[in-house]
Amino acid sequence: MRYELYYWPGIQGRGEFARLALEDAGADYLEVARQTRGMAAMSRLLESQAVKRPPFAPPFLKAGKLVIAQTANILFYLGPRLGLAPKQEAGRLWGHQLQLTIADWVAEVHDTHHPVAGSLYYEEQKREARRRAENFTSERLPKFLNYFEQVLERNGSRGLVGNKVSYVDLSLFQMIEGLRYAFPRAMTKQERNHRRVIALHDRVAARPWLAAYLVSARRLLFNQQGIFRHYPELDTGNLK
Amino acid sequence: MRYELYYWPGIQGRGEFARLALEDAGADYLEVARQTRGMAAMSRLLESQAVKRPPFAPPFLKAGKLVIAQTANILFYLGPRLGLAPKQEAGRLWGHQLQLTIADWVAEVHDTHHPVAGSLYYEEQKREARRRAENFTSERLPKFLNYFEQVLERNGSRGLVGNKVSYVDLSLFQMIEGLRYAFPRAMTKQERNHRRVIALHDRVAARPWLAAYLVSARRLLFNQQGIFRHYPELDTGNLK
Repeated sequence: MRYELYYWPGIQGRGEFARLALEDAGADYLEVARQTRGMAAMSRLLESQAVKRPPFAPPFLKAGKLVIAQTANILFYLGPRLGLAPKQEAGRLWGHQLQLTIADWVAEVHDTHHPVAGSLYYEEQKREARRRAENFTSERLPKFLNYFEQVLERNGSRGLVGNKVSYVDLSLFQMIEGLRYAFPRAMTKQERNHRRVIALHDRVAARPWLAAYLVSARRLLFNQQGIFRHYPELDTGNLK
Repeated sequence: MRYELYYWPGIQGRGEFARLALEDAGADYLEVARQTRGMAAMSRLLESQAVKRPPFAPPFLKAGKLVIAQTANILFYLGPRLGLAPKQEAGRLWGHQLQLTIADWVAEVHDTHHPVAGSLYYEEQKREARRRAENFTSERLPKFLNYFEQVLERNGSRGLVGNKVSYVDLSLFQMIEGLRYAFPRAMTKQERNHRRVIALHDRVAARPWLAAYLVSARRLLFNQQGIFRHYPELDTGNLK
C-alpha cells in the first residue's frame, strides 16, 4: 500500500516522527502537502463538511480508506505493519506508552519558545519563554532523559521496546537530534549522564535506510519555524 | 478481573478519565493509592529498579501482569473490554485519536494556571498565567469545542465514535464538567454555540452507573490542586 502523509511542508515538526518510521522501513509513501496543490488537499481533509472523521490538526496519514491523526496513533498503526513494533498486545501497549511520553516531551519543548500562545510570535512572549526554558533545561530535560536511560538500563535490551529496533527508538533519536539543535549547551552537559540513550541514538543513525534518508533532500533542516528552535538566550545550560 | 488504578489520592486529575470508564461499566477495580499504604505501592512501581517497564507518571493501571500508563493508553486498553469502544481497528483508532486530542486539551487547561513550571506555585507564575488563560479562553477553548461539535454534527450519530456511548464521550463529559468549574464565565458564553456537545454531556450524566458514581463519595470534588482550578482572575470570559 502507498501511504499518504499530510503535514506542513516547511518543517520537520511532529510529522518527522512518522517520516522516520516510513523511511527506516523503506515504505512507499507520498508527502501530499509538499506536492503541487498539496496544501489544498490537506485543508480539504481538515475543513470539508464531507469528511466524517476529521483530524484536529496535522500530521495525519491516509492508509487506504483510513485517515489517522495524532502522531502517536499513526505510529501505533504503522509500527507492526512496518516491522517496527511487536505484534502482540503487551509489547504494543508498552511501546505506545513510551511514545505518548515522548509526545508530552515534544509539547514541553514547543512551549519553551511559546509558553503563552502558539498564535503569538516568539518575540511577543520572550520574557515568559525565558522562565519556562530555564525550568525545562534544569528540571524537565534531565527528568525525561533519566527516565529513558532508566528504561534502557532496567529492561536490559538494546532498544526501548525490545532487542529489535522499534519506532520508539527512532523517535528518541529524533528527540536527541532536535534537543542538540535547540539546546546545545544544556545537552552537552546532559549527554555524559545518559550514555545508553546516546548509544541508542548512534545505533539508530547508522541504520542503512535511515542514514540514507538523513543526508537526502527529503530530510528538512531544523529551522526557526519548527518545534525545536535555537534561541541562544533560552539555552542557558543546566545550571542546577 | 479486578483492575488496580494508581493515581494521586486527593484530586480527580487525569485519573478521573479512567475512573469514569470503570465506573460507567460497573467494573471491579481498586484505587490503590487511596488505600492504607497505597502511596508506598505507587512509589514502588514508579521507582523500583525491579520494575522493568516503569511508568513515567500516574495514572497507571494494573491489569493482571500488565502495567499500563498514559491515560489515553489505559482507555485504549479498557475500552473494548468494558463495552465502551468498538472492537474493530478503524473504530478503535478513531476513538483513540479523539482521546489524544482531549489529552492535548487537558494539558492546555493545566498550563493556564501553570504556564512556566509544574514545580512552581501558581502564585509564582500569576502574570504568565493571566496571559495564557486569556489566550486559552478566547482562542483555544472555542477551537476545541468547535472541533467536537463538528465531529458530532458530521458523523450524524449520537456519540463521538458511534451510536453507542464510548469512553471518549465520558471524557468529553468530564471536560465540560471541569471547564464549568474552572471557567464559568467563559463557558456560559461558549455553551450556547455548542449544543451538541452539551446534549452529549447531559446524556452521559444521566447514565445510571455514572449518575450513581457522581453523587457517591468516590467522586472527589474539583479543587485547587487538580487540573481544573477556579481562579476568577483567569476566567475573564471569551471577550473576542
